[in-house]
Amino acid sequence: MTERVVLAYSGGLDTSVCIGWIAEATGAEVVAVAVDVGQGGEDLEAIRERALACGAVEAEVADARDEFAEGHCLPAVRANALYMDRYPLVSALSRPVIVEHLVAAARRHGAGVVAHGCTGKGNDQVRFEAGIASLAPDLRCIAPVRDYAMTRDKAIAFAEEKGLPIATTRKSPYSIDQNVFGRAVETGFLEDIWNGPVEDLYEYTADPATPREADEVVITFDKGAPVAIDGRPVTVLQAIRELNERAGAQGVGRIDMVEDRLVGIKSREVYEAPGAIALITAHRELESVTVERELARFKRGVEQRWAELVYDGLWFSPLKRALDGFVNETNEHVCGDIRMTLHGGRAVVTGRRSERSLYDFDLATYDTGDTFDQSMAKGFIEIFGLSGKIAAKRDLAR
Amino acid sequence: MTERVVLAYSGGLDTSVCIGWIAEATGAEVVAVAVDVGQGGEDLEAIRERALACGAVEAEVADARDEFAEGHCLPAVRANALYMDRYPLVSALSRPVIVEHLVAAARRHGAGVVAHGCTGKGNDQVRFEAGIASLAPDLRCIAPVRDYAMTRDKAIAFAEEKGLPIATTRKSPYSIDQNVFGRAVETGFLEDIWNGPVEDLYEYTADPATPREADEVVITFDKGAPVAIDGRPVTVLQAIRELNERAGAQGVGRIDMVEDRLVGIKSREVYEAPGAIALITAHRELESVTVERELARFKRGVEQRWAELVYDGLWFSPLKRALDGFVNETNEHVCGDIRMTLHGGRAVVTGRRSERSLYDFDLATYDTGDTFDQSMAKGFIEIFGLSGKIAAKRDLAR
Amino acid sequence: MTERVVLAYSGGLDTSVCIGWIAEATGAEVVAVAVDVGQGGEDLEAIRERALACGAVEAEVADARDEFAEGHCLPAVRANALYMDRYPLVSALSRPVIVEHLVAAARRHGAGVVAHGCTGKGNDQVRFEAGIASLAPDLRCIAPVRDYAMTRDKAIAFAEEKGLPIATTRKSPYSIDQNVFGRAVETGFLEDIWNGPVEDLYEYTADPATPREADEVVITFDKGAPVAIDGRPVTVLQAIRELNERAGAQGVGRIDMVEDRLVGIKSREVYEAPGAIALITAHRELESVTVERELARFKRGVEQRWAELVYDGLWFSPLKRALDGFVNETNEHVCGDIRMTLHGGRAVVTGRRSERSLYDFDLATYDTGDTFDQSMAKGFIEIFGLSGKIAAKRDLAR
Amino acid sequence: MTERVVLAYSGGLDTSVCIGWIAEATGAEVVAVAVDVGQGGEDLEAIRERALACGAVEAEVADARDEFAEGHCLPAVRANALYMDRYPLVSALSRPVIVEHLVAAARRHGAGVVAHGCTGKGNDQVRFEAGIASLAPDLRCIAPVRDYAMTRDKAIAFAEEKGLPIATTRKSPYSIDQNVFGRAVETGFLEDIWNGPVEDLYEYTADPATPREADEVVITFDKGAPVAIDGRPVTVLQAIRELNERAGAQGVGRIDMVEDRLVGIKSREVYEAPGAIALITAHRELESVTVERELARFKRGVEQRWAELVYDGLWFSPLKRALDGFVNETNEHVCGDIRMTLHGGRAVVTGRRSERSLYDFDLATYDTGDTFDQSMAKGFIEIFGLSGKIAAKRDLAR
Repeated sequence: MTERVVLAYSGGLDTSVCIGWIAEATGAEVVAVAVDVGQGGEDLEAIRERALACGAVEAEVADARDEFAEGHCLPAVRANALYMDRYPLVSALSRPVIVEHLVAAARRHGAGVVAHGCTGKGNDQVRFEAGIASLAPDLRCIAPVRDYAMTRDKAIAFAEEKGLPIATTRKSPYSIDQNVFGRAVETGFLEDIWNGPVEDLYEYTADPATPREADEVVITFDKGAPVAIDGRPVTVLQAIRELNERAGAQGVGRIDMVEDRLVGIKSREVYEAPGAIALITAHRELESVTVERELARFKRGVEQRWAELVYDGLWFSPLKRALDGFVNETNEHVCGDIRMTLHGGRAVVTGRRSERSLYDFDLATYDTGDTFDQSMAKGFIEIFGLSGKIAAKRDLAR
Repeated sequence: MTERVVLAYSGGLDTSVCIGWIAEATGAEVVAVAVDVGQGGEDLEAIRERALACGAVEAEVADARDEFAEGHCLPAVRANALYMDRYPLVSALSRPVIVEHLVAAARRHGAGVVAHGCTGKGNDQVRFEAGIASLAPDLRCIAPVRDYAMTRDKAIAFAEEKGLPIATTRKSPYSIDQNVFGRAVETGFLEDIWNGPVEDLYEYTADPATPREADEVVITFDKGAPVAIDGRPVTVLQAIRELNERAGAQGVGRIDMVEDRLVGIKSREVYEAPGAIALITAHRELESVTVERELARFKRGVEQRWAELVYDGLWFSPLKRALDGFVNETNEHVCGDIRMTLHGGRAVVTGRRSERSLYDFDLATYDTGDTFDQSMAKGFIEIFGLSGKIAAKRDLAR
Repeated sequence: MTERVVLAYSGGLDTSVCIGWIAEATGAEVVAVAVDVGQGGEDLEAIRERALACGAVEAEVADARDEFAEGHCLPAVRANALYMDRYPLVSALSRPVIVEHLVAAARRHGAGVVAHGCTGKGNDQVRFEAGIASLAPDLRCIAPVRDYAMTRDKAIAFAEEKGLPIATTRKSPYSIDQNVFGRAVETGFLEDIWNGPVEDLYEYTADPATPREADEVVITFDKGAPVAIDGRPVTVLQAIRELNERAGAQGVGRIDMVEDRLVGIKSREVYEAPGAIALITAHRELESVTVERELARFKRGVEQRWAELVYDGLWFSPLKRALDGFVNETNEHVCGDIRMTLHGGRAVVTGRRSERSLYDFDLATYDTGDTFDQSMAKGFIEIFGLSGKIAAKRDLAR
Repeated sequence: MTERVVLAYSGGLDTSVCIGWIAEATGAEVVAVAVDVGQGGEDLEAIRERALACGAVEAEVADARDEFAEGHCLPAVRANALYMDRYPLVSALSRPVIVEHLVAAARRHGAGVVAHGCTGKGNDQVRFEAGIASLAPDLRCIAPVRDYAMTRDKAIAFAEEKGLPIATTRKSPYSIDQNVFGRAVETGFLEDIWNGPVEDLYEYTADPATPREADEVVITFDKGAPVAIDGRPVTVLQAIRELNERAGAQGVGRIDMVEDRLVGIKSREVYEAPGAIALITAHRELESVTVERELARFKRGVEQRWAELVYDGLWFSPLKRALDGFVNETNEHVCGDIRMTLHGGRAVVTGRRSERSLYDFDLATYDTGDTFDQSMAKGFIEIFGLSGKIAAKRDLAR
């Protein structure tokens, strides 16, 4: 039986060319798999047909939007996951769901190889290959763009030579990856990090500086998951989409940063993630009301490691799994409402309420009803500061 | 010789009353010490004279603004210090400089006791007393408001009975602490955390929603310290003040949060810190360009612990000192320019340049000139993911 | 109805006196509760009768040895919990189980107050009171020895005056706390930290220097719990007891340290915990074979925080609960056998085997059968070291 | 001018063959560099002459023992550096000093390439190449054993063909790396991790089980460095060597472990490091007496990261440098004497004394002279446990 290769297929030039290229280079049959994680654009059926027209022996498309929202974006919200305190891991979160579909297809089709279209200097190659190694350690990976130096020019030449049904115009100046959780843009002129971004980079967000009316929203969470917006029940996917629209219309969620890639270089990235930023902002605030102090302090370190692991392509690692256990436990009481004003590029919390609140009005107030016993403070301070005081005596004696 | 008590004196009702109250309660002579950390308001000389008129045997005032900016705000910028990722430690930073002046005054005047006007449920009492214990473990602390239950009503009665030269009108509804690094406001109606803040809480910042022209600023750093603004050399104090004004005029730096106090309760706080937020935003960005990845990752944990220690009143602790060593080392190469747009409540970085940059255009670019050797990636991924792959084989076998 | 106080009762002089003392001081009825955590010594029934003879209106005794072993010692083994890398938390682990019994008794007897016999400078007062605050925030705590300065002399005088059926001889020079997980000794001459311990401090362990035959033991773990010794199935309690005996006979598990108490002072402590040390040594070794590297590295930080929390009396805290989730997940694959030689004060692992092992002979061997692909290494090193190399270029240019 | 390659030369078969092999394969001239880090064995001059006889155009030998002890072993002692809590980084510490000599030689001889004899599955290749990348990013590295698959059989054939003056007997069953800080042994039968080590693996340590007299030693530290033994002043090198002998004679410092290599596999390693273990044991104990609690708690995390970095070959990384700053600050007060009994494989501390001690007898004692104010405890516990108590009220209400 001819060997089969499962290819992560996007419908674009590079992966369309990969179909024939892999077939020629390896003699294998190519099964194309396209996964909808909310990237928008073409119809899935059109993508499926193009794959077949480009020579795939089979082509599968999957609507993984809910699966992605529930299984990958929600854990990120619960972990307040921001790589380098800023990037909500948009692409990094989508790779694992694609990997799951690739592996399932490889099993269904008896394929021993998985192929992807990543280059050799980004993070995504690691996310694909380390992911596949963890879900299916027996599968082998190939990356034609990286391993066979399939440049854009060679791809265009190949497509034209074979008459593939795919546009071979000069590439857009922007390299884009997008899904329902956000959008990433790289482009030549941003590689000079002194240059600021220009307005036409953006698609998910309007210009924050344009005058407009503010939008007030109330997000309801249950165990860290958004379950209602302005009182209307929503799925996680619906929450992200509605907030993409409403926060995006106010210019919320633009990120322009220099980021540390896993492969050791710094790169300039522009992201827009209005829904993600709005949700994480609201979620953190609800945590500050419902999570006990020492747990909250420790969770910050866990959040950082979680974000690093996912950024670094280790979604399926044992450590990520164990951190998820911690994060889920922490979200047990993250239930309640956050009221937010979306306006001028900012998502600003203006109110919080929760039946699981640890904010105790009677302890916090300085007005009538204060129940805090101030006489306890003297003893507390004395003992809290004692180890430092003893050290000071020693240090001052010198 | 009569015992002497050094009192941290603000010029307000509570500490004015403390002068006589302490004298009566303890028989000691009171030395009033007022420290200017940029809180604005009255003239220092007027404050000095009021202290004497209220019965202090001596009154000292000190302009500590530069000392505070260089010695306390700058380390916080270098540590990107934000308690709970949000609060730039405004009051927490000023207490140590006041403590230093109190201890120096106690030594000059032969005092064995230091007094402050804090209540028993806040953080400041700890910052004063743990600070004094670390600088002068032999000194004793008293806190009349806390230890002798000196309520506001009793203070007013005392002031009126003694005819003290201090206004005894009903207290403002706002409890305010401010210095050059920012301003903190607490007030009754904010104790309902579902209530949003109102515009007249704010003094350092204009309404972000008011339409106005954006302001572009270039901040130059040397070893993590701001040394020029738009090319004009500045001291740290000047940098904070200019950015307070310019970022404040754009509504930058408002913070509304529920915070974990050291004494174990959660409290609602509203802060405004336009200069602090602008500086830390710029500083973090310059770090992302100039600090190596593993160092940057570890530094986040150090920053969190630094902020917690300072918030918790442990400025003078051995751990804080050792963390400063780490932070200073990290700032060695944090030199260069950050261009920022201040507008609509946001401080947005649009450009970075540095002679110490680790951003390497030739490695980052996907265009001509790319020097990154992509053939290295395959081996990297294989070994980077190997421990996870071995674990996966084990786990999948079950 | 007369108020009732539940007293943590040991049967010794101090708590025997507390019964009458509390009754006199508060007018309440005292319910004595004694919990057997394997401390040995007197029969529980004799203790119960003494409590009644000393004036308790009710006296309850509970054999909590299995509960303690399963619910408190086992989590400590899973967390490899050693405070300051040395102390296996002997007393710190037993307080929570006693607290659970006290609270249950308070509920059964309608008591509003819980009393314990701790002094004001140790850790145990915190463990009792913070524990009770977490299990029953409505209960109040009293500590006669601390709060009413009930010194030993006063206790003896009280006992003699009331004719209590308890020996009032001069206290032993040793202050001892012991349970099935270990034994703690403090004594006057050890307060000079230059003095070494003497042989008669020890009861659980023989002199390691005495020549004797070595003892080889094989411990079988399932999910981190000891389930068999030398092939014989055991409960956790049986495992601890057998290893106390066998490791103790070889002098294993003596600890002499200067420790940081929660109340801010350093104190000299001598412990012996042969079973605990043998189990943790074996468990760590099995983890090193079965736990993936990144998970293992992160777990060390979790272990440290776990030990600190439990030492600090925060067994019932939200953070401790969340850390347990992490630790349990980590122990999922900690299954297999550890062979150990117990001899001369040392527990030395000599063999490990596990069906969940991540040790892969074919990857590790340098002999025939080596499957490690060395050609991957070059790419790995190049990219692994790249961020450091870029930084070096910058740093060396200066 | 002919290109020059600097080769890390040990005098053994592999690197002797490398000289000619590299010359043949690359046409370059080979400069051999041998560095004495206390590995013992042959005379340096004999090694130098063999290199020349094997075809090196130049051969340099350096006695780096003091440099290694002061510059590499001492920082490890200050950091209490034990990888996976057990391995004192013996080989990992020596690679950086060798790298420094290689780079210096490359500069002196105008070489553009550095060669080493490591295989592709160990840690040492990373330590060499990442080290060289950090000290001299312009130099290229080659590793004939790894890159050109120079197996032992090929090496023997090459040596015999060329008549090299080097023994080509079958390799010893043991693969050994040793220096003054310790000794590492790998061997075939240990690759079955159920097999225990046998006595003839060991050279630095006597059998712990042999009955003999105990040896008592007093080590004096200044700022974390050993400066005297039993009152006699010593250099760091002398301290390590004397303790190697005395602790080794008592069987102290044997380590048998399964360790996580950087390349992702687990491997079985046997080490002996009597001096290192004795010094670190004593140093930790002195820290527990002289370092304040919060600093000590944080330092554990720093120590772990320090050990991981050095193990992982990142000695010259920016993070390692910054951690050193922290560690040095921490050692500022680590001055004093530790008395230890070396016996039966154990190094047991029996006494500590220090002018910088934070142990305060008057606070610690329960006897006459106690200055601890127990009345402070109640307030401390109340506030220390408050956040947990508030959380408990919430949690119990459900």
